[in-house]
Amino acid sequence: MPPTRTQIVEAADALFYQRGFDHTSLADIAQAVGIARGNLTYHFKAKDEILAAVIDRRLAATQAMLDGWEAAGDGPAARITGFIHILITNQAKIMAHGCPVGTLSNELAKLDHAALPDAARIFTLFRTWLARQFTLMGHGERADELALHLLGRSQGVATLATAFRDETFVRREVAAMRDWLAALATPTNQ
Amino acid sequence: MPPTRTQIVEAADALFYQRGFDHTSLADIAQAVGIARGNLTYHFKAKDEILAAVIDRRLAATQAMLDGWEAAGDGPAARITGFIHILITNQAKIMAHGCPVGTLSNELAKLDHAALPDAARIFTLFRTWLARQFTLMGHGERADELALHLLGRSQGVATLATAFRDETFVRREVAAMRDWLAALATPTNQ
Repeated sequence: MPPTRTQIVEAADALFYQRGFDHTSLADIAQAVGIARGNLTYHFKAKDEILAAVIDRRLAATQAMLDGWEAAGDGPAARITGFIHILITNQAKIMAHGCPVGTLSNELAKLDHAALPDAARIFTLFRTWLARQFTLMGHGERADELALHLLGRSQGVATLATAFRDETFVRREVAAMRDWLAALATPTNQ
Repeated sequence: MPPTRTQIVEAADALFYQRGFDHTSLADIAQAVGIARGNLTYHFKAKDEILAAVIDRRLAATQAMLDGWEAAGDGPAARITGFIHILITNQAKIMAHGCPVGTLSNELAKLDHAALPDAARIFTLFRTWLARQFTLMGHGERADELALHLLGRSQGVATLATAFRDETFVRREVAAMRDWLAALATPTNQ
């Protein structure tokens, strides 16, 4: 991508997350990049085109993060722990703006926006990756169910963290998810 | 409240839920009620005043629902089951627009809106009510933790239901929450 185009997508990604997609105007994006509105519309004719590029960017970033965790070689339970800890690593952002994936999905659903299934593909990346880890842990038969369960719990913590801004709650729920994971890591047929 | 004022708040409540607060204009609300814009601004000077009235309406409706459940006299575990089953009772709406409480909180957080703590009070009503039921079940010491945990799980299911629109997932998670509740209802020191 040409530099300006990349800058536009980066700025839009941050603004969509911090203020919401609908609330962000093309003028806001141009201003954040420091370019004229005409320069922006040279690269993107409509905000929906920027949204598509932002979703692609988030898909690529998520995939790269998951590939990095996969390569770390700490074993599947440690990798899943890494996923759970996003809630602590990104705690300040989540308390301020929620989870980027969950809040974008919710917003696009309300807008009845055609890009909702594309945004949901970011969840699918996490889901597939988590299911692979659960399979490696020996839970192949219900790997997808476990993946969705954990994804759901993590989303719920994010939503209440945004509403209550209570760090103790986040840490307690992270500990509970780790306990749940530890129970799955323990062979039951000893 | 005068009839027109009530109609305005009802229409705004539905529109804020279905389309989002920011995306709903005063003109949209006036059109939904079937009144002139001038008539609407006679009752409410700004959209933030309508938001305050919508939050009050939701607080009152939530309190009335919880009081009704309390009066039903089926015992605390049955009442909590009623709460869990909101996910099934309102499944179609949740798949289309998310949870009204969680999505409004998320949106107000992104807008950095001063009404966020007021919107979060709807969560607090559920939290306090759930904590009372857990106390009645003999879990007084960690009643608030259990209440927040269940509220979080229910929020997470709502968010993924909106993203994936997968009924099987919702039913499976509702069953898992019921199992979790049943384990809490069983005395452990037999």
